[in-house]
Amino acid sequence: MARLKGFQKLTLVDSALKKWINVLQIRKPEETTVTLNEALNRILATDIIAKEHLPKFDKSAVDGYAIKSQDTSGASQFRPVTFQITNSEEVGAKQARQIWTGNPLPRGANAVVMIENTRKINGELEIGIQVAIGGNVSKRGEDVKKTERILKAGTRLTPYHIALLAAMGNNIVKVVKKPIVAILATGNELAEPGSESTGNQIFDSNRIMLSAMCCEIGAETIDLGIAKDDLEEIAEKIKIGIQKCDAVITTGGTSVGGLDLVPEAINRLGNPGIIIHGLALRPAMPTAVAAVEGKPVLVLSGNPVAAVIGFEVFARPLISRMLGMSKEEPRPTVKAVMTRKVAAALGRRTFIRVQVIRKNSDFFAAPVSARGSGAISTMTRGNGFVVVPEDREGVAEGEVVLVRLFGNVEEVS
Amino acid sequence: MARLKGFQKLTLVDSALKKWINVLQIRKPEETTVTLNEALNRILATDIIAKEHLPKFDKSAVDGYAIKSQDTSGASQFRPVTFQITNSEEVGAKQARQIWTGNPLPRGANAVVMIENTRKINGELEIGIQVAIGGNVSKRGEDVKKTERILKAGTRLTPYHIALLAAMGNNIVKVVKKPIVAILATGNELAEPGSESTGNQIFDSNRIMLSAMCCEIGAETIDLGIAKDDLEEIAEKIKIGIQKCDAVITTGGTSVGGLDLVPEAINRLGNPGIIIHGLALRPAMPTAVAAVEGKPVLVLSGNPVAAVIGFEVFARPLISRMLGMSKEEPRPTVKAVMTRKVAAALGRRTFIRVQVIRKNSDFFAAPVSARGSGAISTMTRGNGFVVVPEDREGVAEGEVVLVRLFGNVEEVS
Repeated sequence: MARLKGFQKLTLVDSALKKWINVLQIRKPEETTVTLNEALNRILATDIIAKEHLPKFDKSAVDGYAIKSQDTSGASQFRPVTFQITNSEEVGAKQARQIWTGNPLPRGANAVVMIENTRKINGELEIGIQVAIGGNVSKRGEDVKKTERILKAGTRLTPYHIALLAAMGNNIVKVVKKPIVAILATGNELAEPGSESTGNQIFDSNRIMLSAMCCEIGAETIDLGIAKDDLEEIAEKIKIGIQKCDAVITTGGTSVGGLDLVPEAINRLGNPGIIIHGLALRPAMPTAVAAVEGKPVLVLSGNPVAAVIGFEVFARPLISRMLGMSKEEPRPTVKAVMTRKVAAALGRRTFIRVQVIRKNSDFFAAPVSARGSGAISTMTRGNGFVVVPEDREGVAEGEVVLVRLFGNVEEVS
Repeated sequence: MARLKGFQKLTLVDSALKKWINVLQIRKPEETTVTLNEALNRILATDIIAKEHLPKFDKSAVDGYAIKSQDTSGASQFRPVTFQITNSEEVGAKQARQIWTGNPLPRGANAVVMIENTRKINGELEIGIQVAIGGNVSKRGEDVKKTERILKAGTRLTPYHIALLAAMGNNIVKVVKKPIVAILATGNELAEPGSESTGNQIFDSNRIMLSAMCCEIGAETIDLGIAKDDLEEIAEKIKIGIQKCDAVITTGGTSVGGLDLVPEAINRLGNPGIIIHGLALRPAMPTAVAAVEGKPVLVLSGNPVAAVIGFEVFARPLISRMLGMSKEEPRPTVKAVMTRKVAAALGRRTFIRVQVIRKNSDFFAAPVSARGSGAISTMTRGNGFVVVPEDREGVAEGEVVLVRLFGNVEEVS
């Protein structure tokens, strides 16, 4: 009996990914200009080089008085030095000019004394502390130096990147155009959520999930709907996806011994077609990677969890590259202690779903009881993956593992 | 000399937050119905109770043949048992019916044998393995049981939650209406990014940053623009924010000894006005929390990093609660080793910006060299906060700390 009917052999994940990416030869992504209001979570298309110093001028870092540092020499709370308060443009010897945080330092001054170290007496100012040259001053160029590269192409823009761009005077930014991914589900058994499902039908949840997964990392999607288990229909829909979009993801119709309709349909559409079918990956063994007209096609299982894992392993690095990142964008990752052992298959990369919790500064990863590996609820009851490499037979109770998080970690007491 | 002119005393962060939240008495948020296509990252408004089992029927977890388990008794690869292949609705003794992953189990069958453990010979099927009752079957209700609470109100919807909702037949979901936050910057020195800044002007970066920070966690914003340092203008704009929105956030005009215009303006608008002004928090000491007409007003420093920290400490927990969460939504948090020591002020809660990197499974947190605490580039060069509590004078080199992440952690070799 063949151990794996339908697959000659299973391909290792790293080798499959490398081969696929090599065939695809992903080009530099197209750029588009957006206002900073629209820039959150978009990917920077170009390096940003500072055209000016930031701050543009020496400014006060505190509320207080601008002075000449040397005039505070020897001052203390018990032996304060008396200054004349001035409003002139220039600060002279033993003169102090009031200044607020962010104000430019007046000519003649080289330091600022904080207001809490001063006292006004009879219209004069007592200063009770020595202030060094540059004390309480934000120096010109201290935040960013002119010609410095302040942001790198491929950066996902957070509110802080947006703030830095604004502080440099920008109100627009060049970002990467979102790649467009077509999503197709196949299967006679599938019904649209919201419709009445009859008898043996199940609701298609993979299409909307995969679309959300694409959107989450910065792609747009086009919905190719549900295809029946019909070679012509599947091929026709994938063809539309190839024509209209930058990539196609399918789910279902890729069983081991079952109806391999999707791979067959793809091979009809053009070379090279299916590149690898059958991965040393659990779950998600029947995943296939393909290319048609130079565009990537990812063939995922109809099993919801296997579809998630196949996406995690192939679509995430693919889309990172399509977004112009030099490598896959990392998920938040934590070290945690396994609360019980989980077996894995030697020779396969195994994704274990766990729920990570935090107790003070200790993290624990509890395997999500696998009521069934097809159970999408393992993804909603869990918040992370432990990835068991091909050379390990599992993870032990008490073992410290790295967990890739896909959900919030709650603190418990 | 007064140590802190302008503030009677500094209030501890926890006590200030508690007092503010208590005064506000945040109501249960309003609900709105969205399609699942629009549901990503929205907050679930109600608990979701399963109306059906999932799966609705026993189904095959693999591609293979549905059989009666007892008929495989004693079978092995070397002593296979022969079955008659059937297409009938019901599987009888020593009969096998082909079945694909996800298909309902035919009547009479109680297990499925995987296709790779079978061999077709002369139109009959040899089975070379014993299969237990329920083997390779996803049992009715194994993923979700009818009447089970599958999702909790206050959950931020990931692609997997959306998939579970779809799998239960939903195409719409009730989510929390986004709270609307008005954002106001104040300061004569501020220029709009994209305009020509003259002489001593600086570009306002806080307004767009705070707006992005609100959007990132699920609020909408209205832009109140930039107010001059003028009590009437500030009061008028905050009033508009109070009338139109659920909360107001201001930045600037809250200096210690400087122009306390924003707190004054708020106190004119109604009771209780400013609740606390002056926090034992570094940076962000001049932050104030207020309430007008029962609506929260958060007064942040004009210093960009202080504005970030003030938002982190007060706006994040506030908005979490406005979104119907029982507590503040956690940021991804990792344990890391400090690469050098950093001093902090006893009696204040201090936020240190660090850059966390990962080497294999070890995390290191390098303090971002503070070219100036007002420097927004400390937020773009860093990816996390180390929060030093009030009873600590800093963190030591080599100390293991918890880091709240606000950016991606790169793996380095």
